[in-house]
Amino acid sequence: MSERIIYLPLGGAGEIGMNCYVYGYGEPGKERLIVVDLGVAFPDMDTTPGVDIIFADISWLEKNRSRIEAVFITHAHEDHVGAVGHTFERLGVPIYARAFTANLARHKVAEYGLSEDTIRTASKWPETIKAGPFTVGFLPISHSIPESSALVIDTPQGRLIHTGDFKLDESPVVGEAFDPKLWAEVCAGGIKAMICDSTNVFSPNPGRSESTVGPNIEKLVSEAPNMVVSTTFASNVARVKTLAQAGDRAGRSICLLGRAMRRMIEAAIETGVLTDFPTVIGPEDATQIPRENVMLIVTGSQGERRAASAQLARGKYNGIELKEGDLFLFSSKTIPGNEKDVIRIMNNLSEKGVDVVEDRDGSYHVSGHANGPDLAKLQDIVNPQIVVPMHGEHRHLREHVKLAEGKGRTGVLAVNGMMIDLSGNQPTVAEWIDAGRTYLDGSVQIGAMDGIVRDRIRMALNGHVVVTVILDEDDEPLGEPWCELMGLPETGRSNASLVEVLEEDLSQFLGRAGAKTLTNDDKLEEEMRRITRNSTNNEIGKKPEVTVVISRLS
Amino acid sequence: MSERIIYLPLGGAGEIGMNCYVYGYGEPGKERLIVVDLGVAFPDMDTTPGVDIIFADISWLEKNRSRIEAVFITHAHEDHVGAVGHTFERLGVPIYARAFTANLARHKVAEYGLSEDTIRTASKWPETIKAGPFTVGFLPISHSIPESSALVIDTPQGRLIHTGDFKLDESPVVGEAFDPKLWAEVCAGGIKAMICDSTNVFSPNPGRSESTVGPNIEKLVSEAPNMVVSTTFASNVARVKTLAQAGDRAGRSICLLGRAMRRMIEAAIETGVLTDFPTVIGPEDATQIPRENVMLIVTGSQGERRAASAQLARGKYNGIELKEGDLFLFSSKTIPGNEKDVIRIMNNLSEKGVDVVEDRDGSYHVSGHANGPDLAKLQDIVNPQIVVPMHGEHRHLREHVKLAEGKGRTGVLAVNGMMIDLSGNQPTVAEWIDAGRTYLDGSVQIGAMDGIVRDRIRMALNGHVVVTVILDEDDEPLGEPWCELMGLPETGRSNASLVEVLEEDLSQFLGRAGAKTLTNDDKLEEEMRRITRNSTNNEIGKKPEVTVVISRLS
Repeated sequence: MSERIIYLPLGGAGEIGMNCYVYGYGEPGKERLIVVDLGVAFPDMDTTPGVDIIFADISWLEKNRSRIEAVFITHAHEDHVGAVGHTFERLGVPIYARAFTANLARHKVAEYGLSEDTIRTASKWPETIKAGPFTVGFLPISHSIPESSALVIDTPQGRLIHTGDFKLDESPVVGEAFDPKLWAEVCAGGIKAMICDSTNVFSPNPGRSESTVGPNIEKLVSEAPNMVVSTTFASNVARVKTLAQAGDRAGRSICLLGRAMRRMIEAAIETGVLTDFPTVIGPEDATQIPRENVMLIVTGSQGERRAASAQLARGKYNGIELKEGDLFLFSSKTIPGNEKDVIRIMNNLSEKGVDVVEDRDGSYHVSGHANGPDLAKLQDIVNPQIVVPMHGEHRHLREHVKLAEGKGRTGVLAVNGMMIDLSGNQPTVAEWIDAGRTYLDGSVQIGAMDGIVRDRIRMALNGHVVVTVILDEDDEPLGEPWCELMGLPETGRSNASLVEVLEEDLSQFLGRAGAKTLTNDDKLEEEMRRITRNSTNNEIGKKPEVTVVISRLS
Repeated sequence: MSERIIYLPLGGAGEIGMNCYVYGYGEPGKERLIVVDLGVAFPDMDTTPGVDIIFADISWLEKNRSRIEAVFITHAHEDHVGAVGHTFERLGVPIYARAFTANLARHKVAEYGLSEDTIRTASKWPETIKAGPFTVGFLPISHSIPESSALVIDTPQGRLIHTGDFKLDESPVVGEAFDPKLWAEVCAGGIKAMICDSTNVFSPNPGRSESTVGPNIEKLVSEAPNMVVSTTFASNVARVKTLAQAGDRAGRSICLLGRAMRRMIEAAIETGVLTDFPTVIGPEDATQIPRENVMLIVTGSQGERRAASAQLARGKYNGIELKEGDLFLFSSKTIPGNEKDVIRIMNNLSEKGVDVVEDRDGSYHVSGHANGPDLAKLQDIVNPQIVVPMHGEHRHLREHVKLAEGKGRTGVLAVNGMMIDLSGNQPTVAEWIDAGRTYLDGSVQIGAMDGIVRDRIRMALNGHVVVTVILDEDDEPLGEPWCELMGLPETGRSNASLVEVLEEDLSQFLGRAGAKTLTNDDKLEEEMRRITRNSTNNEIGKKPEVTVVISRLS
């Protein structure tokens, strides 16, 4: 059988976040594999209450671990690197990343007690790494975090470009600019397929450079009469630098608040990607100097309840308290789903008399992703035979395919689990793989379809009744059944205690029940559950979750 | 003691939604009262899982019900009228509304078996209603629903204007235009205070008329090659008319889907506010004619899972199925918090090959609320001595106060529960009232602070373990304790069954426990809860909710 190139997204294709892509080369079913990115997604109350973190189900990779050559991480955003610690022992292959990314990834594997060698530092293009039939190079591209890289993946059947997340920024403040000349050189020999970021495909205008927000931020900060606080994604080192420089130029001392903010700047300085960062002071020192001479740069732009922004909005944080007339700048965009949390902070700040400035028109924030026209421009530079949109919801992938087809190229709409054979001129679906989600729940990894979280959601919606009954040696009820409520009102329609109503109804049932029922646990449980649900519904208009505990003395 | 005017917001001041305002006139503590609006807010999984609807805690009104003269409803949006059915029996006073609002309100009270007389139909200004010391008139103002009205509230100490929700639209497509001349006349004698909508205070440009979206919608619909579906708020009768006329002019038959959509149009036609609405066809007929001759107007613009939009996106609805190349128009704005649900629909539509058009730049949607410059303009027309911002989050109220003060007026930042004495030249806080939220949970009204919903949230986050132990006549454990898990993984760190680990740990504890513990239910329960939480945490890294059931044979 002839050899083939396969592409298999396990996460990120059909969603924003949780990126995980697989490439393979070899005979069908025996392809040697590489993995690109091991990212996470974040839980929410609607679908994943109590879950700590979400990542792609890697069962298929685990089953085929002897075929995996290596993992490559494009950049240090959580949705690309967040799962390296949680998955390393299940895959057990070397992980390659550039220095800044590797610095952060090492902290993640260290939490699992793994050695630093787990993460290998890769140099940028033109250096490459040999991984089985693949040769992989990290080709610099601009994004909202330092050292973001596309991957140049050479196979015996041609060169692939995996863009990673990117924007076309020729003056990105920190890190490498997008270099169209270098890209044109790399792609000059012909590109079989470009697997390309899709998140901003619907944005109709060309993206703006990171450097465009500096003057607006400087003006705002220099005119502020009192303390200035600003929040952005901690990983956006360029923005943090812009903010800090604006503060510095306005004669303010810079104080970084929030663990992630300090860690990120440390990593950037340690690896040499960040230079000329103003001197920072600690929170204690910040309280000792006049408010108008302080600028805080803090975590929590998405409204995270335990981050610095939320804590400053609610009260003191590290001894610092905001006051009437202070200015709070959101140099960020709210990710869909986080609106209520961000708005809560804005209102808490309003209660303190703090003036909030949001980015309403792009003055104080730019996106890190390529917009529609930028995607088109990159296609022109790379000139790939095939375009495979990745990292986007279904609607983004579909629009991106349309864009490629509109330019006369072959576009492939591949979602998580769809293994694509890229070998011929016309890509085909080779196979469907079960692609799901794994939840880190406390310290345990559970499957999204295991029903555990579903049960928690049901308890949240419906409440929980626990029914206990004891049966004696003759299978006769001993005393009355006993009910406990959790998350349900104590009284309902009849104004009697709901527990008493249920116990009475269950007693009556047990009094009437024959030996056939009383000796059969399943039957007894089913009947008691049914009665409990119906009686509760009668009383309070809700059908609760019910756990029946039958204890037999026999 | 001299008489005074009081203003007391119970809902809507410090939030968007759940509007409920009280005005009083008389001697302190003996004021005769009127209530303006009895609205609802909607639950979410984050804070109110399983709750059906939320409205203001009316305990204070109930306690003072003998002092209430009447309720006035400004317009038929749920956040102003939604609680009339749930609260009527607790207040028992007449409710006044204009014909269209009354039509819809009667359906709400009918669900509680209350007669139609409960809701009295009011005529518009210059007719007025006498309510104790107050004389109240419904002064037409434009909004995104027919017959929205401000209230002209005359007191012995002067005239108040309660704007209700509004925009300044002089060509609103359906219903009464804003009439600056009439407003100037009404306010010519001097206005003591204007209590004013604040939701859009941060929008910097003057609001646009409802009539501006018609041409864009007509163009889009006329150019669509296949079936067109559009969604908007069902209550936005003007928009529904614009959409229907666009379809009609493009030679399409109009089909309304969703109960709320049909009900709203019925009410508007019945009460004469909607005329010239194109003939509609039923869903069965819609399936019989060519797709390009059909336009559906459907409910569910906010992503509601059971509404027509969501159902059409997932599969067939009323026999109609969307196909590749159909067009789906969101003639609406997504309310913060609903983004994920709306995006889910867009992606489901994308999977079907349906092209989605959102309102990105105001082409297909305009807001129903007054923007910053409109609020300023209305202040100029009304010329009130005092401005009291209402209906808005804290940040909106604060900004609105700034706006009033910037124009040289007295602004009052009053949040829910703050009773304001408006009598003198300088408003003062007269009293703080407990202003909370009531949840309709199934058929029971519970307090937000009762802990019931908090327990449900805890179960959702932490899971629930039920521990059962039986003690014999000598207070000795009979057999082993028994554990049941709900919403928790079955195995953890030790790879043994979590239930078995817990039962073993609890058994050991009971074996060691002395009579002092075994005879004391509280002590025994506390210890068993502690052990269960700690052992579970050891195994799976989570501390669950625990219910301990102790059964004694003695």
